[in-house]
Amino acid sequence: MALIVQKYGGTSVGTVEKIENVAEKVIATRNAGHDVVVVVSAMSGETNRLVELASQVSDTPEPREFDVLVSTGEQVTIALLSMALNKRGYPARSYTGSQVHILTDNAYTKARILDIDESRMRGDLDAGRIVVVAGFQGRDEQGNITTLGRGGSDTTAVALAAALKADECQIYTDVDGVYTTDPRVVPEASRLDSITFEEMLEMASLGSKVLQIRAVEFAGKYNVRLRVLSSFEEGPGTLITFEDDDMEQPVISGIAFNRDEAKLTILGVPDQPGIAHQILGSIGEANIEVDMIIQNIAADSTTDFTFTVHRNDYDKAMTILEETAKNLNAREVSGDKAIVKVSLVGVGMRSHAGVASTMFKALADEGINIRMISTSEIKISVVVDEKYLELGVRALHSAFDLAEAAVE
Amino acid sequence: MALIVQKYGGTSVGTVEKIENVAEKVIATRNAGHDVVVVVSAMSGETNRLVELASQVSDTPEPREFDVLVSTGEQVTIALLSMALNKRGYPARSYTGSQVHILTDNAYTKARILDIDESRMRGDLDAGRIVVVAGFQGRDEQGNITTLGRGGSDTTAVALAAALKADECQIYTDVDGVYTTDPRVVPEASRLDSITFEEMLEMASLGSKVLQIRAVEFAGKYNVRLRVLSSFEEGPGTLITFEDDDMEQPVISGIAFNRDEAKLTILGVPDQPGIAHQILGSIGEANIEVDMIIQNIAADSTTDFTFTVHRNDYDKAMTILEETAKNLNAREVSGDKAIVKVSLVGVGMRSHAGVASTMFKALADEGINIRMISTSEIKISVVVDEKYLELGVRALHSAFDLAEAAVE
Repeated sequence: MALIVQKYGGTSVGTVEKIENVAEKVIATRNAGHDVVVVVSAMSGETNRLVELASQVSDTPEPREFDVLVSTGEQVTIALLSMALNKRGYPARSYTGSQVHILTDNAYTKARILDIDESRMRGDLDAGRIVVVAGFQGRDEQGNITTLGRGGSDTTAVALAAALKADECQIYTDVDGVYTTDPRVVPEASRLDSITFEEMLEMASLGSKVLQIRAVEFAGKYNVRLRVLSSFEEGPGTLITFEDDDMEQPVISGIAFNRDEAKLTILGVPDQPGIAHQILGSIGEANIEVDMIIQNIAADSTTDFTFTVHRNDYDKAMTILEETAKNLNAREVSGDKAIVKVSLVGVGMRSHAGVASTMFKALADEGINIRMISTSEIKISVVVDEKYLELGVRALHSAFDLAEAAVE
Repeated sequence: MALIVQKYGGTSVGTVEKIENVAEKVIATRNAGHDVVVVVSAMSGETNRLVELASQVSDTPEPREFDVLVSTGEQVTIALLSMALNKRGYPARSYTGSQVHILTDNAYTKARILDIDESRMRGDLDAGRIVVVAGFQGRDEQGNITTLGRGGSDTTAVALAAALKADECQIYTDVDGVYTTDPRVVPEASRLDSITFEEMLEMASLGSKVLQIRAVEFAGKYNVRLRVLSSFEEGPGTLITFEDDDMEQPVISGIAFNRDEAKLTILGVPDQPGIAHQILGSIGEANIEVDMIIQNIAADSTTDFTFTVHRNDYDKAMTILEETAKNLNAREVSGDKAIVKVSLVGVGMRSHAGVASTMFKALADEGINIRMISTSEIKISVVVDEKYLELGVRALHSAFDLAEAAVE
């Protein structure tokens, strides 16, 4: 008998019928002899409906009140799922984030989980009940309702699994696992039976929408065994593993890409200590997240500095950068919104030379010009013109034989 | 500077535009120099939407989960109203029932308020904030979400006013006060400037939908000054007063009626102690509320026993009564669903003879047969055939000169 935490996202609970289907899946796990804690998102469309209501009231709704509003979405789902379970003769109890004391900081709309009091859930499990918890939400020290930001339900599930020392945390979604790349771009993309945490982290942060990056970090930190499965099909999904040195790792596990990038460059700034902070400090203060940062070797006494942001933040970032350029007497600022980032991810990369050159050759063979390059231990990212996205990803998928590369 | 509790019902907050309108009314009160606590219901239609979702899952949804579900309705409204207030530069904070510790028993879907911890609201008021509280909901000792049943928002408002020792509790609704009777039945019906708690209690319990009866009881018990006003029109509304012996009371304040009655009679039961309990006990156990109860003087050793219930409960009550009749060897049971109750209400009735005879004559003049009569200190109720409702109410309104009788 194991303790399983299952998380079902918005599309998995999008209608009453789908909620009934989730109830059946939960019961199947229960009948296999396991204790189950279920985390659910808002029914798909519901969060958007609530956000739309808020936007009718104010362009800049008070964050505290925004969280009070949108947290109702998950509350509706937990109640309906618990009803569906009870109706089938399986005692269940629903809890909001506040009720199971998912304690967070008070950064409304993007709070971070600090602590969870698992005693109440434990009591229900001991009494033979299924526990249903609202994802995405918690409370701060003063009892104010907080939310974890979009996709936060994954994080809730992993955090509960960690607090309860669950045997496995299963993330049910509308895909049946993690793929070598997006099958919509590369039809031959294949499902991975397993992927390491580090790889998953890079895949998630690079735009693979399967798992929220914070959830993966959390799982890695607290040693939570994590699995991604389909709500709609049977199958083993993809297990997120801790790296096993004995295991032969494939060189590349997958190809991630991100369409929503934009790059900004400031040219001819003084090449002196503190300059990066002067440029990026004001960007950070405006709550704009910076992804890649590249500074070339200085020519004479000035240097050029390029960074990428989410495309939605481009205009705001450009306004700030132009202001900074004036203050620094920079020569020029420029930018481009029509770019994408493509990344190879694989822990095997560490021990295999030549990955980068294979990558660059594959792209060159297709006539794709590389605008920026950035690397980490298990990842190589390139920025290319948006129009080359599909061509580039397909070329790389083929160059690294990923169609057959799924780890068994 | 006074402390005012204002309550706005579902139709008053039915759209974002109406919520903005409520914000303006709250601000007007604030600008008049008062502290304000606002209680709101779910946007009209929202509770029905949620109930419909529940009914799609189960015919008999778990009451605990039902409350988790429907309590989201008010939570949406408090967030939107607080946003609207903040946007206008008036700091506001929203709270669910749980958050301000509206402690109730655990009778899900119809919980009763036991206690309120007003300290958190007091802190906000002292800091110059407007406090916005979700009506209709609370939490039990274990922190489970409870609801007070439909219309419970009035009760929340009065309970908060009592806990905070507010100077006035204002119930904003879609009518501009309490009328001598329903203006849809009697166009000459006039608004009362004031009505006593006892009268209001009788009016409310007899089907005047302006105020929830539990709210009136609560206000009477805790000495809360209560006023009914329109959300949509300016005006003083109707003040619910404590009876003042010095004041000349009109004989009759109003005429209430109830279309939803049904009567059941059991004939030829043994005339012995405990018989009423035997008949009504099983009705009560089935959670059917009994309104009028009439037992005639016994003829020989048996007696007849008649009572009224809500029309929706008629079939269920009849089934139970037939069972009881068998056990008691009663001669017969009968019933009628096509009846209504019409009541005269007025504290002045106590000191004026002849009210009953004026009433009976007015009805007789119209050829209306009285089926049942029941009286209390400040009320006379008669049951008549449903078809006579409008005719009877108009005849009585005229017989007691109520068109001009509004208390000034």
